Amino acid sequence: MNDQNLMEKIISLAKRRGFVFPGSEIYGGLAGTFDYGPHGVLLKENVERLWLGMFRDTRDDMYGVDAAQLMNPRFWEASGHVAGFSDPLVECEKCKRRFRADHLDDSQTCPECGGTLSEARAFNMMFKTHVGAAEDESTAVYLRPETAGGIFSNFKNVVDSVHPKLPFGIAQIGKAFRNEISPRDFIFRLRELSQMEVEYFVKPSDWEVAFEQWRKNMHLFAAAIGLPQDKVHELEIPPEDRAHYSKRTIDFEFEYPFGRKELWGLAYRTDFDLAAHEKGAGVSLSYVDEETKERFLPHVIEPSFGVDRTILAILASAYREDDLGGETRTYLALSPRVAPIKAMVSPLLKNKPELVRKAQEVRKELQKVHPAVAWDENGNIGKRYRRQDEIGTPFCVTIDFDTLGETPERTDTVTLRHRDTGAQERLTVPEIAERIKTAIQ
Amino acid sequence: MNDQNLMEKIISLAKRRGFVFPGSEIYGGLAGTFDYGPHGVLLKENVERLWLGMFRDTRDDMYGVDAAQLMNPRFWEASGHVAGFSDPLVECEKCKRRFRADHLDDSQTCPECGGTLSEARAFNMMFKTHVGAAEDESTAVYLRPETAGGIFSNFKNVVDSVHPKLPFGIAQIGKAFRNEISPRDFIFRLRELSQMEVEYFVKPSDWEVAFEQWRKNMHLFAAAIGLPQDKVHELEIPPEDRAHYSKRTIDFEFEYPFGRKELWGLAYRTDFDLAAHEKGAGVSLSYVDEETKERFLPHVIEPSFGVDRTILAILASAYREDDLGGETRTYLALSPRVAPIKAMVSPLLKNKPELVRKAQEVRKELQKVHPAVAWDENGNIGKRYRRQDEIGTPFCVTIDFDTLGETPERTDTVTLRHRDTGAQERLTVPEIAERIKTAIQ
Repeated sequence: MNDQNLMEKIISLAKRRGFVFPGSEIYGGLAGTFDYGPHGVLLKENVERLWLGMFRDTRDDMYGVDAAQLMNPRFWEASGHVAGFSDPLVECEKCKRRFRADHLDDSQTCPECGGTLSEARAFNMMFKTHVGAAEDESTAVYLRPETAGGIFSNFKNVVDSVHPKLPFGIAQIGKAFRNEISPRDFIFRLRELSQMEVEYFVKPSDWEVAFEQWRKNMHLFAAAIGLPQDKVHELEIPPEDRAHYSKRTIDFEFEYPFGRKELWGLAYRTDFDLAAHEKGAGVSLSYVDEETKERFLPHVIEPSFGVDRTILAILASAYREDDLGGETRTYLALSPRVAPIKAMVSPLLKNKPELVRKAQEVRKELQKVHPAVAWDENGNIGKRYRRQDEIGTPFCVTIDFDTLGETPERTDTVTLRHRDTGAQERLTVPEIAERIKTAIQ
Repeated sequence: MNDQNLMEKIISLAKRRGFVFPGSEIYGGLAGTFDYGPHGVLLKENVERLWLGMFRDTRDDMYGVDAAQLMNPRFWEASGHVAGFSDPLVECEKCKRRFRADHLDDSQTCPECGGTLSEARAFNMMFKTHVGAAEDESTAVYLRPETAGGIFSNFKNVVDSVHPKLPFGIAQIGKAFRNEISPRDFIFRLRELSQMEVEYFVKPSDWEVAFEQWRKNMHLFAAAIGLPQDKVHELEIPPEDRAHYSKRTIDFEFEYPFGRKELWGLAYRTDFDLAAHEKGAGVSLSYVDEETKERFLPHVIEPSFGVDRTILAILASAYREDDLGGETRTYLALSPRVAPIKAMVSPLLKNKPELVRKAQEVRKELQKVHPAVAWDENGNIGKRYRRQDEIGTPFCVTIDFDTLGETPERTDTVTLRHRDTGAQERLTVPEIAERIKTAIQ
């Protein structure tokens, strides 16, 4: 299976099994947008809740915000985005198509029609809209190009309301919007994306310690969501390629089917942002150390996670085809922690009320461990397993006549079937509940 | 305390205690936007998770989606929003300010400057932006004015991927955007808002049963998040005031400090939406009944919940002032289920390492019940309680020298202080864990 082929298979499975649909598909789509379906929503929420659990809810130094996507445009002037958040574009003089100059080779002819290409010009990637009744520059606002803005704009409010001691961080999950000229690679490069971002504020002298902690944290998170460690690589960005204010930046790259690409980023941004907004807003953003009474602008470490490309990394690395019982089958080897469905419960035959009743009891029991225990009684049992394999359900539980006592020594036991191996074993329901509990912890 | 006064107090508390901040505040704000702070995020998430738990995760007939906010504009043409999602506006000929015609009395002079007002004209409330490099009508898209769009656009994909049997519903939480000419009443009427919406699809003959179930469900949800039942009222919308396609609509109104206003809506929308999109998209959206092989457009019941106005209803009804120990105090009588912080643990004195150590142990123990157990060691114990009162923390736990054995019969017991009454009792830590568990279930 080549890599192009693999991407097609992942995209096909994602649609077929309710993970990811093209945005506005019945209307021919809208380039750069995708929608999460019933299983995709659960996968996405599991990833986001693990992130919140690890980086916000179990830490004393972390606080959340959920800021509006529409922000006062002066914010993006001060941050430098109005002037500088742009891609260099070239236009074909013949067919008028536009391309990112940095995505073309040096040939200078249009890849679509062979026409001559114009010089590159800067194209701002922020989406602009207008608030209020008039449509002029006085009412123009931008859709935020990154969630970080909603964190910096609330720095003062968080300090004033919860009085955190340095070092502390502010975490946020939300949408960001980038008017990419060529969205591509499924949910990798989107026009509407979700981000999970932290701004971690430190005393200037403490940045290296915090940077190192977050570097480790990011690997721990990769492990928590089941990404294979050997596909996650650190790329130390050399000084000449870093933003001018950043003193250290690491890209966390992932081996996607279409190449090694940026998954997450970790940057030490000095006090660039707080200083820029202190100046832009004309409001002091300095922090007063309670003990030393020292007043200064904290420096910041920024670990930034793209949700959609995380989901893609999970799907791509979990996608498997193997030969099981003489048939080729497809399955997703998802970590049980992120799997949308934790277990499927099934009566062997759907027209036997006693099997159905018992299976419903078993399901109810297992749902005490986690609500995401599915029910499937359609088609033969092999087909049901194959469906769940494609959804990435780690455990399937089948209730048969032995469960009801047909073979006395098997009374009250059920079949547990394992996704990755297809292996089956006979267990009691409490044993299975324990297995699920252990697997998702 | 009059109602205007009450709103000011709620807004002030919301900011002071990290619930809700004005959007882009350091830049002078952006009208109609607000940001959730550290405690607001937790409150909002608790509300949303209760909703998902009740209406999606514990039901076999419900599925989730999470659709892009940017949609193909043809969707909003077919839905009728491009033509009809508008407010009637009048403009002052003197000062050029614009007002909603339906918010003015009949005097026809500007409420700001006394100038003459123009005739009313329709003003579309959808925010428009442009995708791609050109800014013309061919690239215009809208920010969705309601989350429901992302449900209807995915109806076919959900049916094709998870093969649900009627009746079934699709649930979604997300942002919606409305270019309100006069956003008002704090987080009640926003330009950027969050919605929790369900489209519940039924056989045409079954709509009344489903409508009745959802009517009851909505009251159950009100109770689950702690809204006082006597402040929630049903307003049956008479035929002449309903949308032309709706055969029944109930507004769920809440007694806000500024009057009885719409909190949630419940509408029977017939097959209006699916029929409109079948025509608009040129794609069949009919459903085939597996057993009867009948093919038809399902009808739909739409329970719609505004998240922000739900949060406002919770804050407004929980706001209390009383006299405690001779002092006026303010507290939020939040249901423990939605309270951002479930308990606060405190050592009586912060400079006694043995008290701090023991208190940390107790906190860790209680965090096994729920991670949202705060720590506070600043100021005297009364001040700590007052802070938690304003955050709505139902339980405060104090560790003192008796806990450590100074009074032998009290060894290993701690003080549990109740938010609403200020009453204190002496309990063991497992007893307190049990109290918290019971309260948040």
